[in-house]
Amino acid sequence: MSVRYLTAKLAQQIDEQLMSAAGAFSLDQLMELAGLACAQTLAKVYSKEKYPRVLVCCGPGNQGGDGLVAARHLGMFGYQPTIWMPKPGSKDIYKRLKTQCDNMKIQTLAPTEETHSLRDALASSDVILDAIFGFSFKPPVRAPFDAALPLLSASGLPIVSVDIPSGWDVEEGNAEGVGLNPDVLISLTAPKEGVRQFTRRHFLGGRFVPKLMEEQFALNLPEYPGFDQIVELPQAKESGPQKL
Amino acid sequence: MSVRYLTAKLAQQIDEQLMSAAGAFSLDQLMELAGLACAQTLAKVYSKEKYPRVLVCCGPGNQGGDGLVAARHLGMFGYQPTIWMPKPGSKDIYKRLKTQCDNMKIQTLAPTEETHSLRDALASSDVILDAIFGFSFKPPVRAPFDAALPLLSASGLPIVSVDIPSGWDVEEGNAEGVGLNPDVLISLTAPKEGVRQFTRRHFLGGRFVPKLMEEQFALNLPEYPGFDQIVELPQAKESGPQKL
Repeated sequence: MSVRYLTAKLAQQIDEQLMSAAGAFSLDQLMELAGLACAQTLAKVYSKEKYPRVLVCCGPGNQGGDGLVAARHLGMFGYQPTIWMPKPGSKDIYKRLKTQCDNMKIQTLAPTEETHSLRDALASSDVILDAIFGFSFKPPVRAPFDAALPLLSASGLPIVSVDIPSGWDVEEGNAEGVGLNPDVLISLTAPKEGVRQFTRRHFLGGRFVPKLMEEQFALNLPEYPGFDQIVELPQAKESGPQKL
Repeated sequence: MSVRYLTAKLAQQIDEQLMSAAGAFSLDQLMELAGLACAQTLAKVYSKEKYPRVLVCCGPGNQGGDGLVAARHLGMFGYQPTIWMPKPGSKDIYKRLKTQCDNMKIQTLAPTEETHSLRDALASSDVILDAIFGFSFKPPVRAPFDAALPLLSASGLPIVSVDIPSGWDVEEGNAEGVGLNPDVLISLTAPKEGVRQFTRRHFLGGRFVPKLMEEQFALNLPEYPGFDQIVELPQAKESGPQKL
């Protein structure tokens, strides 16, 4: 039995249940483990010796929060992250996560809709962590991200995307062709329908789904190795229709 | 320069600053990373094949919370943890952490001052995680822990202690001789004065101290390997006075 791919609705339901009275997780806990898994995935594929400068691109929602946590852990691992978060969310947790990054001497680009600072940052980066849009993304891509996605693609830098490559539909994938084309994907909790056709290196993180919920939703999660927070999934075939 | 050993007062000060407006961490975040480091340390030394049954002994304070987080992660890693927490703290976070363990089908012994259930649990365990007392412990050891510590010692099971072996004075160590004699120690944030003479395997966890605070307190933390959450410290010499 292979891992279950989640619809947008089911992903939302699992997220809500994890943080309900029954699931009992706080957002702080889940974001910490998710962001740690993102940082570990990047570190697993791109060494800090060859790819020290990581541009962490953060959206306005919880996905951006995962990015801030990942940036801090990357700083702990010895990388030199820079944060681009042009539309910081208003929740208190984002401010706290940002302060934690400040205390790690991690630079954050001034929040602006202009993309010139993003261009400059791309020119002095080695790899991109794409934490812009997650499983609650609904098209279209709005400013300033509509202008940013083509810049990220055009940079030629390797991209590690979190959960859903930014611009992809959560269920339909990159059908519109406006999304990023990442080299590495880190799915959180369980992969989403839209990435069934993803053929490059694909990791799973979010080793926090309790047994009761894994059974309830028949997730068939793969076994994580040892005490790692991530597990690599088998790569999808390059061509041909996917068996459902 | 070797790592700085902390007085009880300094450990308290660092803890408070991490969770102040300046440090911006929530207790949830720190406890998650601390408990994960504890679970990883146990898993590093005691394999789940040979030592599947872990008795997680939790005190009434934040140290007990670390234990609950560790129990959950040990469940994730494939161990069969059992929780002994005879005096659960009243803070909401302990209840949430306990529910998270319930959802992992982790058994918790009924909270009671009687030690017969502890005796039974010890008889069917392979290793002990000692998360009873931490850096805020002040003697004497009160009931039911005064009766429990000798039982844990007499069990002959290997013991992994968190931060300070239970019963040890945070600065003076096991001078009174009433404390546990663990096989493995996992110090959190930075080791405490009382464990300078600890001669067995000693790990450090809590890879969350921001650079600014590491400098402010001249902690001289060792470099953590790769993207691990723990690092093993060199073992202290068996005998002779310690140079200060």
